[in-house]
Amino acid sequence: MEKIFIIKIGGNILDDPDKEFSFLKKFSSLEGKRILVHGGGVLATQIGNKLEIKATLVDGRRITDRETIDLVTMVYGGLINKKLVASLQGMKCNAIGLTGADANILPAVKRPVTTIDYGFVGDIKVKDLSIEVLEGLLNAGLVPVMAPLTHDSKGQMLNTNADTIASALAVALSAKYSVRLLYCFEKKGVLLNVEDDDSVIELIDKNIYQTLLQEGKLTKGILPKIDNALDAVNAGVAEVIIGEADDLIANSGEEIKGTLVKK
Amino acid sequence: MEKIFIIKIGGNILDDPDKEFSFLKKFSSLEGKRILVHGGGVLATQIGNKLEIKATLVDGRRITDRETIDLVTMVYGGLINKKLVASLQGMKCNAIGLTGADANILPAVKRPVTTIDYGFVGDIKVKDLSIEVLEGLLNAGLVPVMAPLTHDSKGQMLNTNADTIASALAVALSAKYSVRLLYCFEKKGVLLNVEDDDSVIELIDKNIYQTLLQEGKLTKGILPKIDNALDAVNAGVAEVIIGEADDLIANSGEEIKGTLVKK
Repeated sequence: MEKIFIIKIGGNILDDPDKEFSFLKKFSSLEGKRILVHGGGVLATQIGNKLEIKATLVDGRRITDRETIDLVTMVYGGLINKKLVASLQGMKCNAIGLTGADANILPAVKRPVTTIDYGFVGDIKVKDLSIEVLEGLLNAGLVPVMAPLTHDSKGQMLNTNADTIASALAVALSAKYSVRLLYCFEKKGVLLNVEDDDSVIELIDKNIYQTLLQEGKLTKGILPKIDNALDAVNAGVAEVIIGEADDLIANSGEEIKGTLVKK
Repeated sequence: MEKIFIIKIGGNILDDPDKEFSFLKKFSSLEGKRILVHGGGVLATQIGNKLEIKATLVDGRRITDRETIDLVTMVYGGLINKKLVASLQGMKCNAIGLTGADANILPAVKRPVTTIDYGFVGDIKVKDLSIEVLEGLLNAGLVPVMAPLTHDSKGQMLNTNADTIASALAVALSAKYSVRLLYCFEKKGVLLNVEDDDSVIELIDKNIYQTLLQEGKLTKGILPKIDNALDAVNAGVAEVIIGEADDLIANSGEEIKGTLVKK
């Protein structure tokens, strides 16, 4: 199967112009099929504060009310997405910026209200995704840049976590491609000792994960990332790498510097 | 040659939710290839005011400074564009929202500084446009929705008038398609008597235009629209119609209700 990279970046890159530039230079130098998925960063909060859109929190979780979905549509889908696209175009990388509403790439369902009403948040069902349009774009040599937004197919934009979008696309594309999903975060990988940046765990699979859990070696913060990665490989994604954006070149080749998650 | 419609809407539709909904219903019911080009409306000004971005005017013309290009990238490329796309998707029209930076659809040049520095405003050279990507999208059954933004191919987004984008795309696509360009505005067409909404001039060509000019029948405000339309038909666009969004169905068929501009 043909290889494809799906690379997710978040606030630690988007909030730092130098890191962003350096990442985009590396990303644009990669060859072959690839998709960039970006998160939001602090910009939405900063602009939201200026617009006096108050963050609504329920049990510590941010609720996407009507004002907030417009805010993130504007900031994620407009400002961040198009600036990334323009920068990549300036580096001769033929980027095309999209949300999940565009070409119906990511239909979602507004999260059902149980104890908490999260508002305009979209849950993706991977089996509902069609990869036909993405395939067409990729085959035309284009590089999709995805904002963390979906839609409900009834006219409403929805807010969806960028990690979730990256793994949904990775799983859907694994039907036709050998997918390597890269989660870029602030550390060089999953660390055995959070105080020691060089203590990267090179490989995690189901058994290693169980052992690490039993030995109490993993911090609470990293668990969702590993769960998410294991879910992706169980659903057909060839490889997931959790690592640092700075190591993109290594992590797109054979000499992996981050944590490789395999089935 | 295959037909294609390029339809431009501006503030009088975008600023009125009922008119917008009604227009999108009609637009989504059209068959065949079509592209929607939208302007900005009052939203950028409203949000700009809240963000305390001051409009810089030189000789009565608004200058696109750094804060303003970020503002319009966000509002035109994000909020307006994605809401239109989500609405169209809700009407089963497979829209894909794009700026001129996406897939390098509209490379432009930052307007050279002469007496006035317009800031981040992009001038398009039609001969630089490649329609290959648009053709691919159209052939895949997608309906491009274009925001009034271009880029300088060096990493910078640029602000470009929506009428200009519509005519540039119309001229470029006329190499392969029989293009009907529809400019939707607040009147039913070019009026012989601005006080009388029923005095629509049915046909304008070069000779009729000269006669109307000599007889002093045209108001100053409509002249740039007619000049623009005549330039487009002279450059290969089959037909331009200046009319009301409400008459979209008529104006996409044979029973034209607006002003037809032909060579």
